[in-house]
Amino acid sequence: MPVPAVTLQTFQMQMRFDGLLGFPGGLVKPSEESLEAGLTRELQEEVGVPVAVTADDYVSSHLAPAPPCLITHFYTKKIEEAELIDIERAAVATAADHGLEVLGMVRVPLYTLRNGGGLPWFLSHSFISNSRAQLLEALQRLGLVPLRALEEAVRQADVRRADQDR
Amino acid sequence: MPVPAVTLQTFQMQMRFDGLLGFPGGLVKPSEESLEAGLTRELQEEVGVPVAVTADDYVSSHLAPAPPCLITHFYTKKIEEAELIDIERAAVATAADHGLEVLGMVRVPLYTLRNGGGLPWFLSHSFISNSRAQLLEALQRLGLVPLRALEEAVRQADVRRADQDR
Repeated sequence: MPVPAVTLQTFQMQMRFDGLLGFPGGLVKPSEESLEAGLTRELQEEVGVPVAVTADDYVSSHLAPAPPCLITHFYTKKIEEAELIDIERAAVATAADHGLEVLGMVRVPLYTLRNGGGLPWFLSHSFISNSRAQLLEALQRLGLVPLRALEEAVRQADVRRADQDR
Repeated sequence: MPVPAVTLQTFQMQMRFDGLLGFPGGLVKPSEESLEAGLTRELQEEVGVPVAVTADDYVSSHLAPAPPCLITHFYTKKIEEAELIDIERAAVATAADHGLEVLGMVRVPLYTLRNGGGLPWFLSHSFISNSRAQLLEALQRLGLVPLRALEEAVRQADVRRADQDR
């Protein structure tokens, strides 16, 4: 249940303990708490401040094709820039998981530079599970990047990956 | 002139404005300042606290094969954990470049998890210029990761990249 934080022109992801990029989140036992309560709890641990998540923030669910076949539930929450800065500071100051489950938070570049840098190069990184698809879905749904620009960014990301593998 | 900060079991890199991972640094005009003075200035801008770099911290230089054929000079600086935490906090609080040239700082996982996560997956990301090679060189020189483990991590990173491109 990842919750990227959205502000004017940015979007938050994190470097996870396993070296992959992803969204804050974690496992929830439905018998013990609601999805939203579980995500709110995980956010407190991972970003260090309370960020209340409600059913209104729900975006989509996805069943992982490979074992352990987890269902990921994706939420987004739009926040003001001041709150984003509070989160970035708390993430390295008070978050219980900093340096353990979370190695750092990063803003996602939503622009494309003349040399192809920005979102296309960011998309060429390695992501956990379906979080790259979740990022693309959220950027489109929230109207942060036009569909045409997203498709072009994905194409350029593939080119960059191929270049690196040569 | 990147300067990764080293503590017990971690190493710092940053997410750059162009969406790639790299080390703090920037351009220096040799007629105006020394390499070390230039790097110290860039560090102030990018991590928000003064980190004095000296010639003793120099590791290696590299001439980029493609235009604009920059020469990158690589420095490492070992710091205490308390200083690392100060830097992480300043990087999102007082650093002039935060949200502009720098989108976030991340700790590099120096371990390998049972599922291949950790350093191998981190090495499957996209890096600017030769910073991935600089990271590998530093981890070996500083004795943070044994050569054998580094070679295995590189191999596993390639496997992960190939898996993602399928």
